[in-house]
Amino acid sequence: MSAKTNAEVVIDGKVYTLCGYEEPEYLQKVAAYINSKIGEIDALEGSKTLPANMKSVMIQLNIADDYFKAKSQVEKLERDMELKDRELYDLKHDLISNQIKTEGTDERIKELEAENRELLLNKARLEATLEDALLAGIGSKK
Amino acid sequence: MSAKTNAEVVIDGKVYTLCGYEEPEYLQKVAAYINSKIGEIDALEGSKTLPANMKSVMIQLNIADDYFKAKSQVEKLERDMELKDRELYDLKHDLISNQIKTEGTDERIKELEAENRELLLNKARLEATLEDALLAGIGSKK
Repeated sequence: MSAKTNAEVVIDGKVYTLCGYEEPEYLQKVAAYINSKIGEIDALEGSKTLPANMKSVMIQLNIADDYFKAKSQVEKLERDMELKDRELYDLKHDLISNQIKTEGTDERIKELEAENRELLLNKARLEATLEDALLAGIGSKK
Repeated sequence: MSAKTNAEVVIDGKVYTLCGYEEPEYLQKVAAYINSKIGEIDALEGSKTLPANMKSVMIQLNIADDYFKAKSQVEKLERDMELKDRELYDLKHDLISNQIKTEGTDERIKELEAENRELLLNKARLEATLEDALLAGIGSKK
């Protein structure tokens, strides 16, 4: 649990002492952001004649708008993430199926190669036997 | 390009007419959110004696804090998304490699099975020829 901190920030030219659990750097970052929002309003034509509460509400609306747009981005990213998770799941599933199939075919190849070697040996033996038999047959005719 | 709209919202008990390009429903949602933030301040002990500008700045800080936390979530989600994209890329690559390998082994199996069938036919022919040769040899001895 972080310690309670005090931080002095300047917002719209006035000094405020903020007391909380956030890091002072963070509070300065937030204050700077609020000042930039105030600056955007101050830059508008006619802003000098804006009643204080109107200016305040405009700033709140603008910051809240940034918040809602960020929230909307979060929601979109979470949806996209879900789609990617599903895609990952399906791909992993396909990969595993493929690997099982590959193991099966590798086994089959070994079996076939072994059968083929056996058949080739067999062929050589039969050919040798046949040759002997034919020679014996020719010899007995003489 | 959406049309410019006017919307009346109530913030902290006062009516404001907002003019802009956002949907009226969205503006009402933002106003309701700001009012909830105002309500949180009003609920604090001692809030009735808060100077107006202090209350205003507290609201701005709280909304800005929500904004920065949402922004932080966006950044984290974008980093996670990048990792998932990399994982997807690698998996797709593995899948393609596997599929190429599988095609190769399927081809090999077909070749071996064809050789096998040829060798078996050959064997049958040799055995038949050998049988004939042996019978002919026996016959000629009689």
